[in-house]
Amino acid sequence: MKKIAYLGLGIMGRGMAGNLLKAGYEVTVWNRTPERCAPLVAQGAKQAGTPADAVAGAEVVMVCLSDDNSVEDLVFGSGNLLANVRQGQIVVDMTTCHPDTTRKEAAAYAEKGVEFLDAPVFGSKNEAANGGLWIVVGGKKELFEQVKPILEVLSETTHYMGGTAMGTSMKLVGNLVVASQLEALGEAMTLATKAGLNPEDVLGVLHVTDFKSPIFDGVGQALINRDFSTHFALKLMLKDAHLIARFAQDLNVPIPASAATREVIKAAVNKGWGELNASAFIQQLEELAGVQVKKQ
Amino acid sequence: MKKIAYLGLGIMGRGMAGNLLKAGYEVTVWNRTPERCAPLVAQGAKQAGTPADAVAGAEVVMVCLSDDNSVEDLVFGSGNLLANVRQGQIVVDMTTCHPDTTRKEAAAYAEKGVEFLDAPVFGSKNEAANGGLWIVVGGKKELFEQVKPILEVLSETTHYMGGTAMGTSMKLVGNLVVASQLEALGEAMTLATKAGLNPEDVLGVLHVTDFKSPIFDGVGQALINRDFSTHFALKLMLKDAHLIARFAQDLNVPIPASAATREVIKAAVNKGWGELNASAFIQQLEELAGVQVKKQ
Amino acid sequence: MKKIAYLGLGIMGRGMAGNLLKAGYEVTVWNRTPERCAPLVAQGAKQAGTPADAVAGAEVVMVCLSDDNSVEDLVFGSGNLLANVRQGQIVVDMTTCHPDTTRKEAAAYAEKGVEFLDAPVFGSKNEAANGGLWIVVGGKKELFEQVKPILEVLSETTHYMGGTAMGTSMKLVGNLVVASQLEALGEAMTLATKAGLNPEDVLGVLHVTDFKSPIFDGVGQALINRDFSTHFALKLMLKDAHLIARFAQDLNVPIPASAATREVIKAAVNKGWGELNASAFIQQLEELAGVQVKKQ
Amino acid sequence: MKKIAYLGLGIMGRGMAGNLLKAGYEVTVWNRTPERCAPLVAQGAKQAGTPADAVAGAEVVMVCLSDDNSVEDLVFGSGNLLANVRQGQIVVDMTTCHPDTTRKEAAAYAEKGVEFLDAPVFGSKNEAANGGLWIVVGGKKELFEQVKPILEVLSETTHYMGGTAMGTSMKLVGNLVVASQLEALGEAMTLATKAGLNPEDVLGVLHVTDFKSPIFDGVGQALINRDFSTHFALKLMLKDAHLIARFAQDLNVPIPASAATREVIKAAVNKGWGELNASAFIQQLEELAGVQVKKQ
Repeated sequence: MKKIAYLGLGIMGRGMAGNLLKAGYEVTVWNRTPERCAPLVAQGAKQAGTPADAVAGAEVVMVCLSDDNSVEDLVFGSGNLLANVRQGQIVVDMTTCHPDTTRKEAAAYAEKGVEFLDAPVFGSKNEAANGGLWIVVGGKKELFEQVKPILEVLSETTHYMGGTAMGTSMKLVGNLVVASQLEALGEAMTLATKAGLNPEDVLGVLHVTDFKSPIFDGVGQALINRDFSTHFALKLMLKDAHLIARFAQDLNVPIPASAATREVIKAAVNKGWGELNASAFIQQLEELAGVQVKKQ
Repeated sequence: MKKIAYLGLGIMGRGMAGNLLKAGYEVTVWNRTPERCAPLVAQGAKQAGTPADAVAGAEVVMVCLSDDNSVEDLVFGSGNLLANVRQGQIVVDMTTCHPDTTRKEAAAYAEKGVEFLDAPVFGSKNEAANGGLWIVVGGKKELFEQVKPILEVLSETTHYMGGTAMGTSMKLVGNLVVASQLEALGEAMTLATKAGLNPEDVLGVLHVTDFKSPIFDGVGQALINRDFSTHFALKLMLKDAHLIARFAQDLNVPIPASAATREVIKAAVNKGWGELNASAFIQQLEELAGVQVKKQ
Repeated sequence: MKKIAYLGLGIMGRGMAGNLLKAGYEVTVWNRTPERCAPLVAQGAKQAGTPADAVAGAEVVMVCLSDDNSVEDLVFGSGNLLANVRQGQIVVDMTTCHPDTTRKEAAAYAEKGVEFLDAPVFGSKNEAANGGLWIVVGGKKELFEQVKPILEVLSETTHYMGGTAMGTSMKLVGNLVVASQLEALGEAMTLATKAGLNPEDVLGVLHVTDFKSPIFDGVGQALINRDFSTHFALKLMLKDAHLIARFAQDLNVPIPASAATREVIKAAVNKGWGELNASAFIQQLEELAGVQVKKQ
Repeated sequence: MKKIAYLGLGIMGRGMAGNLLKAGYEVTVWNRTPERCAPLVAQGAKQAGTPADAVAGAEVVMVCLSDDNSVEDLVFGSGNLLANVRQGQIVVDMTTCHPDTTRKEAAAYAEKGVEFLDAPVFGSKNEAANGGLWIVVGGKKELFEQVKPILEVLSETTHYMGGTAMGTSMKLVGNLVVASQLEALGEAMTLATKAGLNPEDVLGVLHVTDFKSPIFDGVGQALINRDFSTHFALKLMLKDAHLIARFAQDLNVPIPASAATREVIKAAVNKGWGELNASAFIQQLEELAGVQVKKQ
C-alpha cells in the first residue's frame, strides 16, 4: 500500500502528510483552503481539487479534520466523500470526534464495502512534525495490522484499542487526563506563587517526584516564561471539553473535577484567549487568584 | 553531626530512622507507643522513654508525626519538647502540617536559640524504607547545607525551597497535584471502562504519552488488581485535603477542581475506606458511575 | 379560536388538555400511545389516529412532548406534522427543549405561513391538572396576545419573554434554579441531620426566612416522609440538566455550582432512581454523607 | 428581667440594642470602638468602658461579634468576660461562629454556674433595625422560654433548635442555603442575559413560580440596578463560607455545589469587592461569562 490520499491539512494533518512523503509514500493531498497544500506539493505531494479527485487512485484515505461537523460535512455533506470511495479502499479517520460520529461513519462505509479505522492521535504540532505522535486505533484487528506500518511512520507508539470507536473513545479519555493535568498544574502554580514559593523551584520538585509528568515540565516552563504560542489552541481544548462532557453524559459517568475544569476553560475563552495555546487557560486560574506565575 | 534523635516512628519515620542507622548514625528513637521502637532497637538504635531523654545528647532532632495536633502536642503540650531542646541543637520537622504550625514552631525554637528546618517528604512506605523519598526544605540556606548530608541518606532528591515554612508549603502544593492525579485517573478509568475499553490497554496508552505519570502506572495497575493495601492511608489523604483547603483559604486562592475532588474523598471515607490506601477513593468514582474497573 | 388540536398526552399534556375541555374548547387529541387518549375522550375530546387528522380542522395546534428528539420526530420525522399544518394555523409548542430546536421549528413553520409560539411551562403534575402552571412564551407579541386567553386557562400566570425561543430559553434558566434549590436543600438537610438538628425544625426555619422557597416546604417535607412519588421524574431532570449544560455551552457561560449538581444527578440515576420524583436525587447527597434525613 | 448588657455594636448589634431600648429594657452597651456607642446612648443606653463594667449589673448579657476570633478574645482573652460574669447571669451569644466555639463557651460558663444560649440571627441591617430578624437558638429549653420575650423584641420569629450549639449549627446550614441561592440567581441571570432575555422579565417569572424566594426579588432587582450597597458584606459571606466548609469537614459531609460556590466567592473577594454587599459576588459570575446583568 503505497498510494495515500490525505484529506485535511491543519496543524496536525500537515505534519503527518509531510512525514508520509518523507517515508516514500505517494501522497495526494486535499484541503478545503487549497493554499495550505503548497508546502506539501513542494515536498512532492500531488494536489487534488476535490475529495473525489484525491481518493480516486488511493489505497488508503487518511482524514484529519477539526471536529464532528467537519467530518459530517466531508463524508455526508458537501465533501461527498462517501459517494466517492469504493470497495476495497481503507479510510482512516484521525479526527478527534465523538464516538457516535465514528460509529455513523463506520456503518456508512461498511455498507459500501469500504474498510474503516478510527485513529485519533495524541500530541500536537511538534509531535505531528517529528513523527512522534501516539495513535489510538479502533476497528478490526487485522485491518489495524495491515495499516500499522503507515501509522508507525507518524508515531512514537501505535495502540490497538478494540473495535470501532474505541480509538475515539480512548482519545476523549486521554484528553480528560490532559485537561486535568493542566488544571492541576495551574492550581498548584498559582497557590505556590501566592504562598511565596519560586515557580522554577516548584517545577524542579514536580520534575523528579512520583507524580511528575512531562506536561508539567513543558507547560510549566512556558507558563513561567509567559509563552502561550499555539501548539494546540485553547478553543480546541474547549471543543474537546464539550465532547468529553457529552461522552460522559451518554455513559452517565459523573466526572466532578473535570466538570469544574470545563467551567474554567469556558471563562478563559471568554477572556479572548481561544487562539492561544491550551495552557493559556491557566491564566484564568491566575485571574481567579489575583496573582501571576512568572520568573521572580 | 552523628547523633540524631528521631521522634515519631509511624510508617514513614520507621523507614527513615532505619536508613539513618544503616548509614552509621547514632540514633535515639522515641515513639508515643513505645512498642514501635523494637525493630529499630534491633537495628542498633537506643530507645528513650520520653522526648526529653531522646533529645538530651542529640545534635539533630528529627520529628515525623501524623498531623498538626500531634506536633502541637509534642512541642508545646504533653511532649514538652520545647522545654527540653537547647541552644545549638537543630530540629528538623518532617511532618506534613500547615505552614502556620511550622511558623509557630520556628518562632518558638528561635527564641531559645534552637535552629529549625521544615522538611516534609514526598513518597510513601516504600520510598521511606528504600531511602527514595523527595524532601522539600524550608529555613536558612546555610542550615540546609549543613543538614543536607543527613537528608540525602533518606532521599532520592532534596530540594531547598526558601525560608521557614516553604517546605510545608511545597508539600501541600505537591499533595494537591497527587490528589488531582488520582482523581483524573479515577475519572478516566471509570469512563473508559463504561465505554468498553480494556483498562490495561488504557494504562498502556497513559504509560507512553506526554501526559503520563508514574502514579498512573502504579495506582492504575493496583486499581485493576483491586489491590488497596495501604502505603498511604486514605484518611491521611483526607486530612491533607483539609490542610490544602485551609492553605488555599488563607491565601484566598480558588482551586475549583481540587475542591470537587475533596468532596469525593469525603464520600469515600464515609464508605469506610479510610484505612485503605489513598487510591481507594477511586472506588467512590466507580460507585458514582455504577461500574468497576478491573481485569476484563 | 375554539378548535384546538392537542398533541402529546404525557403527565403534563393530559392535565392541560383536560382543562381546555373544561373551559369549553373543542379539543382533538393525539398521542403516540393511543390508549392515553381514553380519559380525555371520556371528557368530550375527539381522538385522532394521526397528527395529520388531529390538526386538520384546528385553529390552534398545541404540542407537549418529552424532549427534543420527540419534537424532531413529530414535526420533521415520522409524525410528518410540518407537511400537514397550513397557512393561518397557530402552533404552540409547550415542550421543554433546546432553544435551537425551537428556532428550527419556528423557521420551518414560517416558510409555510404557519404561526408559531414556544410556550413551555413551569409546574408539574398537580399544576397541570389544576390549571396552575406558569407559562413562559417566545414569539411575536401580537400572536402571544391572541393566544393568551387559551394559555390563561392552563396557568396561574403567563409571561411574554420576547421573540422566538425566549420561552424555551427562560424555561432552561428556570430549571437551573430548580435544580440549584433541590441541591441546596439536599446539602442543607444532610448537613443538618448529621449535625443533630431535627429536620422538621430546619424546615420550620427555612419556611419563614428571607431565603425561603415553596419548593423547600414541599420537597423538604416529602423528603422527611421518604415520599418520592413521581410528579416530575428524576430522569427528566437529568435530561433537563443536559439541556442546561448544552445551553450554557452554546452561550459559553460558566455555571460552576450547576455543573457540580449535574454530576450528583447523574450518580442518582445510576442508583436506579430515574423513575422516582426528581427530589429523589437528594438521596444521592445522603449516600455521599452516609446519613438519611427522616423523622427522628 | 429588665437589665441587659449588650456587647458588640456592629451593623447588627446596633439595631438590636436600639430595639431593646425602644421596648423599655435598661441597656448598658459596650463596644471595642467606643465611638459606636453614641447613637445608643442618645436613645437612653448607659455606656460601659469595659466588658466587666457592662455586665456588672446585668441579668442578661447579649453578645454579637463578627467572628470566632472576636468571641475568643472577648470571652477568654483581652475582654476577660468569663472572669467577670457570675452565677445566675444569662449569656446569649448571637454571633455567627463555629459550633465548636459555642461548645467551648458553653462549657466554660457552665463551670461558673452561668447560663448560656447560642442565638445567632438570620437577616441583615434592615431586619436588625426593624426587629424583623429570625433567631435560631440552642441551649436548655427552659432557659430559652425564659429569654424568649427578649428575643421576640428583636425578631419576626424565634426558633428553639435543641441543645447547645444547635443555634450556631442551624445558622451555618441556613447560610449554606443563602449562598446557594445567590449563586443560583447569579448563574441564572448571567445565562439569561447572554441568551437575550430581559433580566426584569426573568425576575418577573422567578417572582411567581414555586421556586421563587424573596432573596431573588431583592437581590435580583439590586443586581439589575447595579446597587451593591452593603447590608451584609461579601467578606463576611466569605468568612461564613469558610465556617460552613469547616463544619462540613468536621461532619464529613460532601457539599459539592457549595464547594464550587465558595471558590467563586474567593475570586470575587480577590477582585476587591469584599466591602460591598454579599450579592456583589454575582459580579464574579458575570466576569466569568463576559456579560453584565443590567437594565436593557
